[in-house]
Amino acid sequence: MLSEFELIARYFADPAQSTGAVGSGVVLGPGDDCAVLAPSPGSQLAVSVDTSLVEVHFPAAAPAVAIGHRALAVALSDLAAMGARARWCVMAISLPEADDAWLAGFAEGFHALCRVCGVTLVGGDVTRGPLSITVTVHGEFPAGQALTRGGGKAGDVLVVTGALGGGRGGLEAWYAGARELDDPLLAAYLLPQPRLAAGEALRQLAHSAIDISDGLLVDLEHLCSAAGLGAELDVAGLPLSAGLVARLGEAGAHEAALCGGDDYELLVSLPAARLETARQRLAALDVPLTAIGRLRRAPGIAGVDAGLLRNGWRHFPEGAT
Amino acid sequence: MLSEFELIARYFADPAQSTGAVGSGVVLGPGDDCAVLAPSPGSQLAVSVDTSLVEVHFPAAAPAVAIGHRALAVALSDLAAMGARARWCVMAISLPEADDAWLAGFAEGFHALCRVCGVTLVGGDVTRGPLSITVTVHGEFPAGQALTRGGGKAGDVLVVTGALGGGRGGLEAWYAGARELDDPLLAAYLLPQPRLAAGEALRQLAHSAIDISDGLLVDLEHLCSAAGLGAELDVAGLPLSAGLVARLGEAGAHEAALCGGDDYELLVSLPAARLETARQRLAALDVPLTAIGRLRRAPGIAGVDAGLLRNGWRHFPEGAT
Repeated sequence: MLSEFELIARYFADPAQSTGAVGSGVVLGPGDDCAVLAPSPGSQLAVSVDTSLVEVHFPAAAPAVAIGHRALAVALSDLAAMGARARWCVMAISLPEADDAWLAGFAEGFHALCRVCGVTLVGGDVTRGPLSITVTVHGEFPAGQALTRGGGKAGDVLVVTGALGGGRGGLEAWYAGARELDDPLLAAYLLPQPRLAAGEALRQLAHSAIDISDGLLVDLEHLCSAAGLGAELDVAGLPLSAGLVARLGEAGAHEAALCGGDDYELLVSLPAARLETARQRLAALDVPLTAIGRLRRAPGIAGVDAGLLRNGWRHFPEGAT
Repeated sequence: MLSEFELIARYFADPAQSTGAVGSGVVLGPGDDCAVLAPSPGSQLAVSVDTSLVEVHFPAAAPAVAIGHRALAVALSDLAAMGARARWCVMAISLPEADDAWLAGFAEGFHALCRVCGVTLVGGDVTRGPLSITVTVHGEFPAGQALTRGGGKAGDVLVVTGALGGGRGGLEAWYAGARELDDPLLAAYLLPQPRLAAGEALRQLAHSAIDISDGLLVDLEHLCSAAGLGAELDVAGLPLSAGLVARLGEAGAHEAALCGGDDYELLVSLPAARLETARQRLAALDVPLTAIGRLRRAPGIAGVDAGLLRNGWRHFPEGAT
């Protein structure tokens, strides 16, 4: 096995990113005891951490490029939900062995998403152990402008970006033997796209936001409880991922969209008067925006089968490996 | 098992710390998609991440309070080495099961060190899996004042804080059956004290610094190679941890001090003319400072047995469990 130092030197520096580049905010990149960053004057910092563990969050046999992409994407999704601009990340990886081809694929997936999202990897740690990746992401927004979970108002329209159910549908596709990343459902599951540009575009229009990592219903409950409100959903109008009905049937597709998790779309509440502006801004980013209900004073979530309300996020199906 | 959400709510908020407290810099603590932080105007940010994995970095049977303390301490030690003031951290923990007593002990150790060091835990992630803790720490210093590894000059005096060899000595003590945390060697290994105040005090006096996590020789090699210099060491004058010679003998104690790792003291280079000032500042903090050699133009490390130079950091002894 390569030493920790060799691994870090070889894979943690992205040759296509210059950490000293003007505008990167990176004063000192990987290689010292800490990275040194220059926050933008007048900004506040958004910080979030996410662990992706093999056989809990992704299959061991998933392509390395997807594992690298996904570990970063799920963390960046939290920045998107705050309306933050992504800036920097650090990554800790635990590896059972140092396989060159696997590491090259992992690094390719991770760094490619860094470049797309304008994020610089500024530090890391490598340990020998079961495959696990923990990414801490850092974003910025003008001071006082964080888009939180708790700002929703009764009467707000609830909207979601993109389409739902692809996370669950892709997981089912994987277990059914799908392996090609150009399968839209598998791509939705293994290569989620953090909605950073959409989050920034919605920041000044929206009252509240959360990313849909645990399933629409669970995350809507978080949004509601943070605001002390309830909601009514138009389940028939949920935007479903391409291919979802074909794979899971009508009822299964709706259950996946409501309870499946791993979609990494944004669930946002905003005043009805701003809906058209929001839609236009997201259309310019090529991101669909669909109204799916409203916040209301009455507690609970109306419009949803009561059984589904108790059926929240699950990791892998029981017994699957 | 408690749900992820319950665990987070119960153990990740420190009742003794108010995240909204004036001066904490915490605009929004745990519970939203991200924490929101207000960096100090005119400061730069130091960021580092460290993973502590069971049976690699600590024994599974170590007291939970020590595991919590140690996981944070090793990360904070990197801030100390940059001369940064510790501000915030996020923690991702993977747990095989949710044992209330264990979690309470872990949280007690983690939060107690937070309070001592002025750090606020602002976010986390909980996963079910092999025991592993990844802590990302954030510190600050006035812009441009980072204390790096690479600033050493030929002729600089090399100094270390505290005493060396305790990390290795404590590991040996653990395997010999020691279990009491008031054993000085075991405490050095399981409850290292990050040298944050010393790092800040030395920031404007020193040319370069690193923390001794991988062993004095390995870390000295990092300091030398970053500066393009060599060094000469006075091995006979190394400050040895209390009880080290009694446990390991004279030769074993020196080998532990040179190669053992896990000491989390600072190795610093500074001009000889500032040595006395540095010693006084650290004496006021009750931290010993010992001159152990010099940086020099000639490459390599003189004064050390050649066999030891090849004997770097090792995790647990081969086959130990």
